[in-house]
Amino acid sequence: MAAPKQGPKQGPEEGPDPSLTIADLGELALIERLKPFCAEGVVGDDAALLVVASGYELVVTTDVLIDGVHFSDRTTPAFAVGYRAVAANLSDLAAMGAEPLGITVGLGLLAQTPWQWVEALYQGMTACLATYGGVIVGGDLCRAAQKTVAITAVGQVRAGQAIRRDTAVPGLSVVVTGAHGASRAGLALLLGEVEGDQRSAAAMGWIKAHQTPVPRFDAIAQLHSLIDTAVPYPTMAGMDSSDGLANALLQLSRSSQVGMDIVRSHIPLPPGLSAVVGPETAFDWALYGGEDFELVLCLPPDLAAKFVQVSGAIIGTTTGTGAVQLLPSVESRRRITLTHQSFKHF
Amino acid sequence: MAAPKQGPKQGPEEGPDPSLTIADLGELALIERLKPFCAEGVVGDDAALLVVASGYELVVTTDVLIDGVHFSDRTTPAFAVGYRAVAANLSDLAAMGAEPLGITVGLGLLAQTPWQWVEALYQGMTACLATYGGVIVGGDLCRAAQKTVAITAVGQVRAGQAIRRDTAVPGLSVVVTGAHGASRAGLALLLGEVEGDQRSAAAMGWIKAHQTPVPRFDAIAQLHSLIDTAVPYPTMAGMDSSDGLANALLQLSRSSQVGMDIVRSHIPLPPGLSAVVGPETAFDWALYGGEDFELVLCLPPDLAAKFVQVSGAIIGTTTGTGAVQLLPSVESRRRITLTHQSFKHF
Repeated sequence: MAAPKQGPKQGPEEGPDPSLTIADLGELALIERLKPFCAEGVVGDDAALLVVASGYELVVTTDVLIDGVHFSDRTTPAFAVGYRAVAANLSDLAAMGAEPLGITVGLGLLAQTPWQWVEALYQGMTACLATYGGVIVGGDLCRAAQKTVAITAVGQVRAGQAIRRDTAVPGLSVVVTGAHGASRAGLALLLGEVEGDQRSAAAMGWIKAHQTPVPRFDAIAQLHSLIDTAVPYPTMAGMDSSDGLANALLQLSRSSQVGMDIVRSHIPLPPGLSAVVGPETAFDWALYGGEDFELVLCLPPDLAAKFVQVSGAIIGTTTGTGAVQLLPSVESRRRITLTHQSFKHF
Repeated sequence: MAAPKQGPKQGPEEGPDPSLTIADLGELALIERLKPFCAEGVVGDDAALLVVASGYELVVTTDVLIDGVHFSDRTTPAFAVGYRAVAANLSDLAAMGAEPLGITVGLGLLAQTPWQWVEALYQGMTACLATYGGVIVGGDLCRAAQKTVAITAVGQVRAGQAIRRDTAVPGLSVVVTGAHGASRAGLALLLGEVEGDQRSAAAMGWIKAHQTPVPRFDAIAQLHSLIDTAVPYPTMAGMDSSDGLANALLQLSRSSQVGMDIVRSHIPLPPGLSAVVGPETAFDWALYGGEDFELVLCLPPDLAAKFVQVSGAIIGTTTGTGAVQLLPSVESRRRITLTHQSFKHF
């Protein structure tokens, strides 16, 4: 039973025991309730022990998500906060060509945070891990003024086969593994920025893209099926588009010191999006919306052609110039130099 | 030059350009200023690549520190926040018998946080890493309502040689690598809880113990020098005393399902502490103060005897009972059962 309340109530008011806060539970009971979400036999020491397979390198990435900055109760239920936080980290592993081993979870919570919120957060995290691989191997828990979720993911990649940002050369095809703009469209629907039937198939897909994104390990597996026997190993580069497609193109260009000619009409948009928000906004969200977690790859043209037979699209070519230029169509002579316009924290 | 201020000023008012906030800098300039603190060639991709040596296992640990909970401007300058945060994580690696490879840093900052604070934080982190090993291999940066430092450390340990909590058996000697209570004494001095000359050698040592603690890799090296040729490999257990000596003894007892007879008079106290705060308070801080980051090891008696010839002390013995019992002295028949009394977040 819940003890008397000492702070303002928050969170859902339905379901079993919604009034129970983590202050009611206390730290030790909270830790006991979180243990079943963690890998058995790994948690319980000062640190977690994991094995990186022989011939593999370790890959490490970290993300911090904060209530009011990266999520809010208005747009993101706790399950989706957890799912998305893990998916974002796993996407960074996928972008390196790696497979997941495990994650640690650093959690800052308010005393009045409902246990239901914490439980749903962990359900979301473990649901994502169950789908794509990896387990929760450790964590830390403390009081904070904002809900804070700091996740570090570790994975492994075959030695020498990590996909880097700085290894593109002129003459490669620029490939995206899917459409961009759906996550931003989902957010817009949830915020009421656009009118739309949230129950339409397209709208539900956009909301899903925002709340439970897909780290593209399937695309990495597809790539490996094409290159595992390749001699010499193909020249390539890549990253994920978590901060927007434009940002990914500009980062790859800068890291590899290559230019790009990107054909605007070849960039896949989410079906139906232009009809709802107009083609200019749809294209703006595709370039700058962010959080689509697709992969942006620079591949040899023959490999790219084989790759997009299964999924994704070739949107352009790397060049010897320094700039990323947008061409309205293949035939167009008009070029627009792409610039940064991504989310800034400060 | 600093742009006009939009929020209240915080932080130090002396030194070069103290008025410059991270909002003045902007996110990209801030990232550029942080790059020199990070490992060259490792940062810049979606994730960091590291090599775990052949025959070694991966060790992962994480800690979240929050302004107002784990540190404050009153007791902990930014350099010490960074140093202590890294030392706490490295201590978890040392407690597993591991050596550091690298850390990731997830940072939540207020827009009006002075650049000087962030710079000193990173100076503290890299100073600790330079002393004990490891590099900054990645991070994340975002806006938050409280300064938040989430660190994950990865290390490596020879396969099968990790020091666990659940492997103690009855009849082992319980060893501490040093005195307990100094960190709590340092905090008390900084908070003005106790009268004392902060410039005395003892007081400066306590403040140092609080602000720049020592992860005991030296004790692990000493242990390895004694056991590397041992056949069979000795039965042992251990952890660090970051949450207090009492907590460490109780955790080891519970995880290994052994009891302990601990001789109170054998627990080393910081020299001079009893004279300043009285023997009862000194002993209370030794048991429950926390953050001393010593190691608490259960070792075979002959190994323990050799170990403490260099440093540390034998404070008791593991037993077949379930309880951790305090004996005032070796001859005493009076026993006090030790209980949890550590810092609780909720």
